[in-house]
Amino acid sequence: MDNCLFCKIVKGEIPSTKVYEDNEILAFKDINPAAPVHILVIPKKHIASLIDMQKEDEILVGKIYTVINKIAEEQGVKENGFRVIVNCGRDAGQEVMHLHFHLIAGTKLGEKIV
Amino acid sequence: MDNCLFCKIVKGEIPSTKVYEDNEILAFKDINPAAPVHILVIPKKHIASLIDMQKEDEILVGKIYTVINKIAEEQGVKENGFRVIVNCGRDAGQEVMHLHFHLIAGTKLGEKIV
Repeated sequence: MDNCLFCKIVKGEIPSTKVYEDNEILAFKDINPAAPVHILVIPKKHIASLIDMQKEDEILVGKIYTVINKIAEEQGVKENGFRVIVNCGRDAGQEVMHLHFHLIAGTKLGEKIV
Repeated sequence: MDNCLFCKIVKGEIPSTKVYEDNEILAFKDINPAAPVHILVIPKKHIASLIDMQKEDEILVGKIYTVINKIAEEQGVKENGFRVIVNCGRDAGQEVMHLHFHLIAGTKLGEKIV
């Protein structure tokens, strides 16, 4: 997608601080972190939003969670814990229309999740 | 797991308001909703936490997201949007040690996600 910020990051047209990459998945630091550890994990393939996920993307989404666990371990937050958030659409405040999973950790996270 | 609250819900030993069920996945209303729509989607299989997910669980996690999309549509929140949250471990305030995905919607959700 020509005008997608995250597709440009995937292609290296916009710089990012990568923490993981394979053929299908990229993870990089959020440029406006909400916590000491705030990483975005995305499919390289353009999927605009969670609701655009297709049946054939299930294994990709599953792999993203394996990657999230791997990153949590590498970032040293596996033991203390972490939160994964996917915002889908307007009410959730989805800012970039390319499916992304927030991995948030490094502090005691609030109970307010709405 | 004998003492797991969600395993008891899966077995029907504790009542719940189910919104989806198949052989592998169950979804039911959170008894203490944080928003107008607050549903917990869980694997029937006991996985204590996200970090206990194994490689072979990837397809199950992917299927859970297909179910989340299906429920979002049925609940009438697909268009306006929704948030999915997984809390893993102490810092995230994981309350029940059985992997669960919060589906939260029905109102404008806050930007504060930590």
